[in-house]
Amino acid sequence: IHPVYAAMGTTIFEQMSGLSRELGAINLGQGFPDEPGSPDLIAAAARALAEKSNQYPPSPGLPELRDAVTAFYARRQGLVLRRDEVIVTSGATEALAAALFALVRPGDEVVLFQPAYDAYAPLVERAGGVPVSVALTPPAWAYDAAKLEETLTERTRILILNDPLNPAGSAASEAELAAIAELCGRYDLYAICDEVWEDVRFDGVRHRSLLDFPGMGERAVKIGSAGKIFGLTGWKIGWMCARGDLTLTLARAHQFLTFTSPPALQWAVAEGLTKPDDWFAAQNQTWAASRERLKVGLTAAGYAVLPSVATWFLCVDLAASGVMLDDRTFSERAVREAGVASIPVSALFDDVGALGGPRHVVRFCFTKPDAVLDAAVERLATFR
Amino acid sequence: IHPVYAAMGTTIFEQMSGLSRELGAINLGQGFPDEPGSPDLIAAAARALAEKSNQYPPSPGLPELRDAVTAFYARRQGLVLRRDEVIVTSGATEALAAALFALVRPGDEVVLFQPAYDAYAPLVERAGGVPVSVALTPPAWAYDAAKLEETLTERTRILILNDPLNPAGSAASEAELAAIAELCGRYDLYAICDEVWEDVRFDGVRHRSLLDFPGMGERAVKIGSAGKIFGLTGWKIGWMCARGDLTLTLARAHQFLTFTSPPALQWAVAEGLTKPDDWFAAQNQTWAASRERLKVGLTAAGYAVLPSVATWFLCVDLAASGVMLDDRTFSERAVREAGVASIPVSALFDDVGALGGPRHVVRFCFTKPDAVLDAAVERLATFR
Ligand SMILES: CSCCC(=O)C(=O)O
Ligand SMILES: CSCCC(=O)C(=O)O
Repeated sequence: IHPVYAAMGTTIFEQMSGLSRELGAINLGQGFPDEPGSPDLIAAAARALAEKSNQYPPSPGLPELRDAVTAFYARRQGLVLRRDEVIVTSGATEALAAALFALVRPGDEVVLFQPAYDAYAPLVERAGGVPVSVALTPPAWAYDAAKLEETLTERTRILILNDPLNPAGSAASEAELAAIAELCGRYDLYAICDEVWEDVRFDGVRHRSLLDFPGMGERAVKIGSAGKIFGLTGWKIGWMCARGDLTLTLARAHQFLTFTSPPALQWAVAEGLTKPDDWFAAQNQTWAASRERLKVGLTAAGYAVLPSVATWFLCVDLAASGVMLDDRTFSERAVREAGVASIPVSALFDDVGALGGPRHVVRFCFTKPDAVLDAAVERLATFR
Repeated sequence: IHPVYAAMGTTIFEQMSGLSRELGAINLGQGFPDEPGSPDLIAAAARALAEKSNQYPPSPGLPELRDAVTAFYARRQGLVLRRDEVIVTSGATEALAAALFALVRPGDEVVLFQPAYDAYAPLVERAGGVPVSVALTPPAWAYDAAKLEETLTERTRILILNDPLNPAGSAASEAELAAIAELCGRYDLYAICDEVWEDVRFDGVRHRSLLDFPGMGERAVKIGSAGKIFGLTGWKIGWMCARGDLTLTLARAHQFLTFTSPPALQWAVAEGLTKPDDWFAAQNQTWAASRERLKVGLTAAGYAVLPSVATWFLCVDLAASGVMLDDRTFSERAVREAGVASIPVSALFDDVGALGGPRHVVRFCFTKPDAVLDAAVERLATFR
């Protein structure tokens, strides 16, 4: 057994969803909408199943989907990419794995901003790299270029930036991104830009990819996810975008991880990406209304809710709420005693002890029907 | 860039399919049926899309699919597995990647029988292992335990066995498997058993997994593929089976490669696996008839066809056919000049020079409508 897996547990998302299913709890842990998902996209997938080939599409994805991704980014982010700069993957996790296996060389240091998605560190290690953590702190979770620069050594070769940031629900400012891009250029770093939440923003700011900053073209891998954009997390259609030769290398890594992804879902996502801007706005309004409902409910129940401008998540500051439990204890007891699953943010914070990271923040997923959110709030109100 | 990817080209399958699309050739290269696939399974997937959740299924797969896989193996191979000994993956390639990343430790030697699927060696290397080749030779492609034993050292820890064997179309005998199992026990090796062709056999022999041999329980990972079983190669639903704790490790590796696979396709495959034996027999008869048609056609056209008892492939011995081209030249010229794509077997044979492997064998995929096979034969008859 390779040491990385010998030491590894089950991801917190699977753990909490498993407990939730077992206990019949309300699952505000793992991030997914309860809604069935767009009927148009589902119908498009059913049509493609019946009418299109169910055999291998090209390994880097259907040309129609690659074109749809480039058109989507041009329209919504002003980002110009060519078809062959987009590689379709079996979800964003595969894109992340492919990018890390392609880029990390033995001993390379890879900067992770904490909190970090829990796949990052084990994948970096399995790829032969050494994760180096930079802590962000609530409530702003702001990027500090000076602190970042202090952690860079001559072995640092890559950083992973998750913007907007899960679990925080925050988004980097233009100035923060510019400072990170400047450091990438100066220290000759690759950036793996996990931008799966790019289209789930409530702050009225147009997402700008780190890839789009001066000098980043040749050094960035931008990762996107149809599961997040359309709230269809089970579809597992994602992509990675890069400029020039880098794309070829990513395609090589992808061809021997999953080779390709189901064509019917690729067709449906391609169709979905052509929806007009007001379609996406309406979807975000629905999610924003749910965010507001959970925020108001939790606040009324005495919980101190942290700001959230993006993602499907709201965080609660337990200490400021007067709840004297650490986040893991709270999550464990809340699912068992109140029947509400959440995610303890420290489970997504490597080296939380050494870095003095927060142990008093829990994350709730709000993309649920009103009645579910209300029931969860009621349970959590009694529980505290 | 990691050196494995720096040196890597595009897989021969993607290359030949790409050329085929570009030139409008008949594609007997990459292995997939031209038929649309079972209408029942496609309808089941469409129904699941509309009626079931499109959100994350459990990471190791829907319980219903894991149960269906165990029931399928119990019925068709007499192999008893528990639900938690099956991990669903995004195709067999992901299963292979997960198993190798989980099991290979730095410097481990991994035995590959040549010809070998072209993902094996790069994945072994990227996982930190050292591929060691054992050559098989046409027309029997037989396993020689003494030759295998000679290549084992104290660093050998894993072997990969693809049975039935792609591209050869051969299948190991009970005695060959027993000898391999005995060596695995004696030398304390893991076996990664790529058995994606287990249910595409025309020799009337019931497939027996290497996992099922004495002493192999704790040391085998058996990989299966719904894409092959049902002729729906784009669906990318596969699985890996192992006994006991090994399964936990595989699940860890899987959770950070793709996490999970589309639920609608998982539901449909679960339903498909309950089809009665005569349904599978009928499907195999259709494929066997196509195999016969291509064999008769190629033989009449003067090509020396090698025996094929399994898979979707027939191989031709160019030398015995009096064609004085090596396989790569033949494949390249056949697709351009005759408009028929094939796979040169030496492209799937690592170290073909050093091992004195065959350079005069090409592979044709026969799971195509009669008219397509006839047209291909006609073109190849004129071409030679
Ligand atoms: C792959 S399970 C995790 C889903 C997710 O993005 C989250 O809950 O943060
Ligand atoms: C993933 S493309 C290769 C398909 C296949 O199994 C073959 O053609 O051998």
